[in-house]
Amino acid sequence: MSSTALLTDRYELTMLETAIASGLAEVPATFEVFARSLGGRGFGVVGGTGRLAEALRAFRFDDEIVRWLVDERVIGSPTARYLEHFRFSGSIAAYPDGELYFPGSPILRVDAPFGEGLLIETLILSILNFDTAVATAAARLRLAAGTATLIEMGSRRVHERAAVAAARAAWIAGFDSTSNLAAGQRYGVPTGGTMGHALVLAHPSERAAFEAQAAVIGSSTTALVDTYDIGHGIRQAIEAFGTDLAAIRIDSGNPFVEVRRARTLLDELGATKTRILISGDLDEGLVRRLVAEPVDGFGVGTKVVTGGGVPTAQLVYKLVAVERNGVAEPVAKLSANKETSGGRKAGYRRLRNHRIVEEFSIDPAVTVEPTDDSTLMALEVPVMVEGDILDPESAAQSRQRLADRLPTLGEDLDAILDATEPLFVCHHLGPSLPRSGHGQHDQ
Amino acid sequence: MSSTALLTDRYELTMLETAIASGLAEVPATFEVFARSLGGRGFGVVGGTGRLAEALRAFRFDDEIVRWLVDERVIGSPTARYLEHFRFSGSIAAYPDGELYFPGSPILRVDAPFGEGLLIETLILSILNFDTAVATAAARLRLAAGTATLIEMGSRRVHERAAVAAARAAWIAGFDSTSNLAAGQRYGVPTGGTMGHALVLAHPSERAAFEAQAAVIGSSTTALVDTYDIGHGIRQAIEAFGTDLAAIRIDSGNPFVEVRRARTLLDELGATKTRILISGDLDEGLVRRLVAEPVDGFGVGTKVVTGGGVPTAQLVYKLVAVERNGVAEPVAKLSANKETSGGRKAGYRRLRNHRIVEEFSIDPAVTVEPTDDSTLMALEVPVMVEGDILDPESAAQSRQRLADRLPTLGEDLDAILDATEPLFVCHHLGPSLPRSGHGQHDQ
Repeated sequence: MSSTALLTDRYELTMLETAIASGLAEVPATFEVFARSLGGRGFGVVGGTGRLAEALRAFRFDDEIVRWLVDERVIGSPTARYLEHFRFSGSIAAYPDGELYFPGSPILRVDAPFGEGLLIETLILSILNFDTAVATAAARLRLAAGTATLIEMGSRRVHERAAVAAARAAWIAGFDSTSNLAAGQRYGVPTGGTMGHALVLAHPSERAAFEAQAAVIGSSTTALVDTYDIGHGIRQAIEAFGTDLAAIRIDSGNPFVEVRRARTLLDELGATKTRILISGDLDEGLVRRLVAEPVDGFGVGTKVVTGGGVPTAQLVYKLVAVERNGVAEPVAKLSANKETSGGRKAGYRRLRNHRIVEEFSIDPAVTVEPTDDSTLMALEVPVMVEGDILDPESAAQSRQRLADRLPTLGEDLDAILDATEPLFVCHHLGPSLPRSGHGQHDQ
Repeated sequence: MSSTALLTDRYELTMLETAIASGLAEVPATFEVFARSLGGRGFGVVGGTGRLAEALRAFRFDDEIVRWLVDERVIGSPTARYLEHFRFSGSIAAYPDGELYFPGSPILRVDAPFGEGLLIETLILSILNFDTAVATAAARLRLAAGTATLIEMGSRRVHERAAVAAARAAWIAGFDSTSNLAAGQRYGVPTGGTMGHALVLAHPSERAAFEAQAAVIGSSTTALVDTYDIGHGIRQAIEAFGTDLAAIRIDSGNPFVEVRRARTLLDELGATKTRILISGDLDEGLVRRLVAEPVDGFGVGTKVVTGGGVPTAQLVYKLVAVERNGVAEPVAKLSANKETSGGRKAGYRRLRNHRIVEEFSIDPAVTVEPTDDSTLMALEVPVMVEGDILDPESAAQSRQRLADRLPTLGEDLDAILDATEPLFVCHHLGPSLPRSGHGQHDQ
């Protein structure tokens, strides 16, 4: 992986300049990632923490990068010297991929010298904001689809590298496979895909295309039957592949009409086990309604890889504590509608009868134990420990986590998916800051 | 750049298997990228064609990739042998970055053996769909912002590599700078950025933070004044930097109220030349209304890098011709609401008095000339010629193109931005396909 150091907002380096000059760069500080909003939804799903290790390992300022920064007058000599030897020395703890989160959840905490904590803000937020948006949209589609197969096929609708991250996030969130081969190679996500309209169009006839496919792959494939007329296409497919044909795919038309017709026709032709997959501009609402129809699987593209209407998770990265006189002092801004909650935090979730009761954050130095019959779950896991980057868990482990977590939201699926307000808010249990803040010290 | 070959949907390789077996892989074919819809807008702006050259150069199947594909049973031996020696041998022509487009515009044309044309579909669409979505949103923001400064600062809200492409696309579309350093290094986009709330919070007081910044950078900077109380912050900033302070930034609160208050206060303090920049969840609608206020510049994040409500350009890649008996025969699918228009096409635009009159596509082999006092503009430029990848123009050249093009849409800015239907549709001038298509040959 090429260096990730310049995947950074310029202001981080400008601030670093000032912090080096004022002596703040080396002062221990704590930064936190959290969301103020879930974008009108009931729950969020963390994505991207499993990609952080690789990105942090590649966060190095080589000679060429430092020279460019100096030439562009982004930094001066003291900062250049600082960056030449830069190696992140702090610790990072985070909610792992596949964990649920709510407004206020301390999704990631960086404990590091102030200057180091500044530098990695943009990279961390880029990774978490994109992957989390996709994981959340995908988890909702998984709930909506019930037991039907879900295929992520949106690679062509997002940036080419984002597509790989999206496929990983969607699989963690419960999709069965992806069309994206790089996600298969890199993260072990199962890949799938059979044919598009080009193959049909290129052959002299639809029948010729199916026969060519049957000769190479046999009947364990999916025939795309809507290039011309769907009924005609289904007949051609069954004649070419036989009644053992694994599946057909319909990518156009009114799916409510077409899947019933297709099921009837397939059954008439004796292809009673041939599955029906549909694709084409599907979203969560359509999937929820279509599960009642004879559909066996959904191919979802745009509406999963672009977050299903919420294309970024709106996570922010804020300084929450800085050491003064040897003590980590909480800090918070008071900007209108953008207040922050100061202090170092770790997240915990309380469950009763396997259902979430509450989520709270508390100083990680405090030991917490359940006081009743509820179960208490510590939510953060280490990503870096004093400069050592830990290997992340596999995508499969993250996928299992979310499969375990989704039922803790409750049994009423409609209520969970229809919620326009967060189902829970993570409360901070800790000393509250004086509302005056530090700004008033000036006067 | 690492190989881009697996940034591909699996079905391209499955289709290639069939095409190799049926002899179609080597048959000359033409594929086309176009949009059916502009997502409820009047015009689109092409982005991403300038990134294709680099991506295509890296589209190579090395031994490791081929082995993985075989091990995963994506492909068999004949396809493995084909890929080992794969080098794209076709030609690609495209609307360059910064060109306007409309539904039906033949944005990109691939003339290549069928098997080769299949393989690059996903990569091309990923690049064009993302970059075009950002370029279009950014161009609309540019029109909305008038002469005010526009700063792209959305890197933290999209995938870390997508952020670099987004910064490039936004700059081509008329933004003045980006926060993203990698876009500066790689594409020459001007970068900017001064301070965030963390710097203020880390210092013992707001005044101390401004003084530290002033000591390092002087007054040619932007002070972020809303960490605590905006009026207080402005007074502290002018005291620390002096009345020569270049700019203040306000990132919270009601901008309609705050910018007027800020202007009055700055003028009272004698900082009459200090500019006011605002940021924080700005979108096209807010920018259009805020240009009437005393705002000198806008920092836009989420709403430009995620496409301003249209996060993907919905461009598709379709087979439009395939050689049969030595002749390039047009092909088209008839799927409900997803019909395509067959035949090779190149795009032309007719202008009169520097305004667009119409856009049309026609067989590139046909010579077209204006028949009246209008000007005819050929829209496509070569990207690859028979396997040779051409160097793309610079982002600065693309930026100049769009600056020249935007006035050709007309003078009524409100009508252009308020349009919910395309202002033009690219008509195809050519022999129309029989509506029956090839599917009916089967019966």
